[in-house]
Amino acid sequence: MSDIETPQISRGLEGIYIAESRICKVNGAEGRLYYRGYPIEALVKNSSFEETTFLLLNGKLPTRAELDDITRQLADARDLPQGVVRIISEMSGKAESMDILRTATSALSAYDAETADMSPAANFRKSIRIISRMSSIVATIGRMRAGGSYINPDKALGHVENFMLMLNGKAPDKQALDIMKDMFVIHAEHSSNASTFGTMVAGSTLSDIYSAITAGISVLKGPLHGGADEAALKMMKQIGDPSNTESYIESALAGKQRIMGFGHRVYKAYDPRAKVLKEYLLSLQEHSSEEVRRYTAIALRAEKMMIEKLSASHGIWPNVDFFAGPVYVAAGIPVNLFTPIFAASRSAGWCAHMLEYWKDNRLFRPLEKYTGQIDLEYVPIEKRQ
Amino acid sequence: MSDIETPQISRGLEGIYIAESRICKVNGAEGRLYYRGYPIEALVKNSSFEETTFLLLNGKLPTRAELDDITRQLADARDLPQGVVRIISEMSGKAESMDILRTATSALSAYDAETADMSPAANFRKSIRIISRMSSIVATIGRMRAGGSYINPDKALGHVENFMLMLNGKAPDKQALDIMKDMFVIHAEHSSNASTFGTMVAGSTLSDIYSAITAGISVLKGPLHGGADEAALKMMKQIGDPSNTESYIESALAGKQRIMGFGHRVYKAYDPRAKVLKEYLLSLQEHSSEEVRRYTAIALRAEKMMIEKLSASHGIWPNVDFFAGPVYVAAGIPVNLFTPIFAASRSAGWCAHMLEYWKDNRLFRPLEKYTGQIDLEYVPIEKRQ
Repeated sequence: MSDIETPQISRGLEGIYIAESRICKVNGAEGRLYYRGYPIEALVKNSSFEETTFLLLNGKLPTRAELDDITRQLADARDLPQGVVRIISEMSGKAESMDILRTATSALSAYDAETADMSPAANFRKSIRIISRMSSIVATIGRMRAGGSYINPDKALGHVENFMLMLNGKAPDKQALDIMKDMFVIHAEHSSNASTFGTMVAGSTLSDIYSAITAGISVLKGPLHGGADEAALKMMKQIGDPSNTESYIESALAGKQRIMGFGHRVYKAYDPRAKVLKEYLLSLQEHSSEEVRRYTAIALRAEKMMIEKLSASHGIWPNVDFFAGPVYVAAGIPVNLFTPIFAASRSAGWCAHMLEYWKDNRLFRPLEKYTGQIDLEYVPIEKRQ
Repeated sequence: MSDIETPQISRGLEGIYIAESRICKVNGAEGRLYYRGYPIEALVKNSSFEETTFLLLNGKLPTRAELDDITRQLADARDLPQGVVRIISEMSGKAESMDILRTATSALSAYDAETADMSPAANFRKSIRIISRMSSIVATIGRMRAGGSYINPDKALGHVENFMLMLNGKAPDKQALDIMKDMFVIHAEHSSNASTFGTMVAGSTLSDIYSAITAGISVLKGPLHGGADEAALKMMKQIGDPSNTESYIESALAGKQRIMGFGHRVYKAYDPRAKVLKEYLLSLQEHSSEEVRRYTAIALRAEKMMIEKLSASHGIWPNVDFFAGPVYVAAGIPVNLFTPIFAASRSAGWCAHMLEYWKDNRLFRPLEKYTGQIDLEYVPIEKRQ
C-alpha cells in the first residue's frame, strides 16, 4: 500500500537496468569501452567503419567475404532518392543541420519498399540502407550549406571516403580521411545512452526502424547529449587565446555554468574515447593549422584545470565531446556538422540495439507519480475566476 | 557488489516511476481517468479541444478571455508553410500517413523563428503552434491521399471543425463534428505512456520541442501503441459478418494471436475511454451506416467473448483503441488517418508533459546489463574463420 502511495522516483532512470545486451560494455569505473567484446582502441587502430558496422550488427568480426559483402551493400544504398534531396534543399538555409537530418531520415521511409516489413531479415537490410544513407544525407546537408549541389556517390570508395567526397566534391587528403575514419568508429556505439534508449522506446511499440532512428536523432540533438561537442568548441572559440583559459573557466564555474565536455553519467574515470582523441591532437601538432593548435592548447589547459580543481570532489573528467571539436576542425569539418556526423556514425549502434531488442521486445511504459488534485468539479465558464 | 553484477532488469520499465506530474491521473484499478483533476467524462461532455488544450498546458480551466485567447492563437497558427505542404505532397502516395506526419512535423522546425529558443515562454508559444499545425498536416495528408490539394484554413472555425474542413473541403455535419470533437478530447492525454515518455526522453537532452514531438510521433506509430485502433478495425473487417465473431476469436486465441484493442498495462478495469466510445456507438445505432452497425455488432460480440473467456484469469478488458475504429468510420474518417489523428490530439499532452518536465529536467540515461564477452583479441582478417 505505502509502496504505491509513495513510490520511489527514478530520476533520469539513473541506475535502472532496462535490458540485457551483448553489444557494448562501458566500464565506467576503469574507463574502458568495448564493442562486442573488442576494446575501442583496437578497433580505432584496425577497423574500418564497414567492419565496425558488421561487428556491431552481427556480433563478430567479418571474414574477407563478409566484409566485401557489407561494403558492397553499403555502397549500393548510398545514392539518395531525389525526393529526399529535394527535402534537404527545401530546408537548407532555414533550419539547423540536425533538424534537416531528422526530417530527411524520416523521409527515407517513403523510398524503401520494405519499410513496413518487420521480419528480422528485412530489418537487417533496412539497417544497412539507413546507415549508408544517413551519411549521404549529412554530406548533402553540408554540401548545400556551402552553396553546392548534390554530389553523386562513388561506389568504388569506402564509406568514410565517399562521405568526404559527397561533402566536399573531392576526395579527402590522407590526414582528413584518417581522422574521419576514426571519428566514425569511435562514435558508432555507446550502450543505452539517451539516444539509443530513445531509439529503443520508439522501436518497442513495433514501430519501424525509420521511426526508431528518427527518434534517436531527435534525442541526440540536445546540448546535453550530441550537441555537447559543438558547445565545447564554442567555448574554446570564446576563450580565444590560450592564456585566457584559466580565467574563463574560473568565472564560468563561479557563475555555476556547466563546462561542456566534462563529466559523464557512466564514466567515473577518463573516457577512453577522449584519451584516443587527445593523443590524436597531440600527434597532429605540427601538421595542423594554427587554429587547431590554439584549440588544442586551450583544451589541454582547461582539462588540467578542471581535473585539478574538481576531480577529487566530483569525479570530473573530459568526455569524448571535449576533444572532438578540435579534431573535426583538423579534418576541415564545419561546426554545424559535428552532431550530424555523430548521428550518422551512431546509426550503426542504434540499428544493432534495435535488431537485438526486437528479438525479445517489451513495450516501454513507465509510470508517473501523480501529485495533482483529483475529482474536481467542472465549473461552467461563466462561473470561473 | 552483487547488486552490480546481477542487477534486476526492469523490462519495459514496468512499475518504474520516472517523475512526479500534475497533468494526468490514470486510476487503473478503478478505471478512472483525469486530466488536471477533471474526470474525462466531464471533459468529453463539456469541453472543446481548445479548452482541453488550455487545461492541459496551464493546469486550470480557462476564463472566457483566456479561452478566446488560446482559440485565436491556435487559429492564427493553422496555415501551413508552403515548404511543409510541398514535403507532404512529395511523400504522398509513397509513404504511410504516420511517416508523412512524422516527417512534416519534423520539418515545421525550419519555419519557426523560435525553434532554438528554450525559454519557457517560447516553448509555450511553440507548443501552441505545433498543436495547431499537426492537425493541419494530418488533414492535408488525408486531403492529398484523396487526390485533393491543400485547403486554406478558416480562422473563424473551431479547431476540430477547421480540421474537418481542411480534410474534406467542406464543413462537417453535426454528428461527424460531435464525434471528432470527442475523439480529440479523449485522445489528448494519457500520462507517461510510451509516446509521451519518448517525447520526454528526447526533450530531456534539451533538444527542442519539434525534436521531442517528432520522437513522440515515432513512438506512437507502432501497432502496440497508436496503431492498435487501426489493427482492431482491420480485425473487424476480416471477421466480416457478426456471426463469424466467435469462431474468429476462438481460432485467433488458439493460434496465440494477440487480439488488438484488448488489455492495457495500466488499466485492470474497464478503460473509461472505451466506455465513452462504446456508449457513443450504441447511441448512434439508427443514425449510422450499415457498415458502422456491423462493426458495432462485431465489437460487442468480441468484447463479450473476451471478457467472459479471459477476464477472470488475465484482467482483459477492451481499451480505447477497440471501439475507436467504428467511431471514426461513423465520422467518415479513413483508416489510415486514425493514428495521425490520435497524434494530432495527443500533441497537447506531449507538449504539456514537456513544459512540465523541463522545469526540473534530468537526462534519461538507463543502463543495460552486459552479457557478452570481454577483452577479445583483434584477429587480422586473413586469420578469421
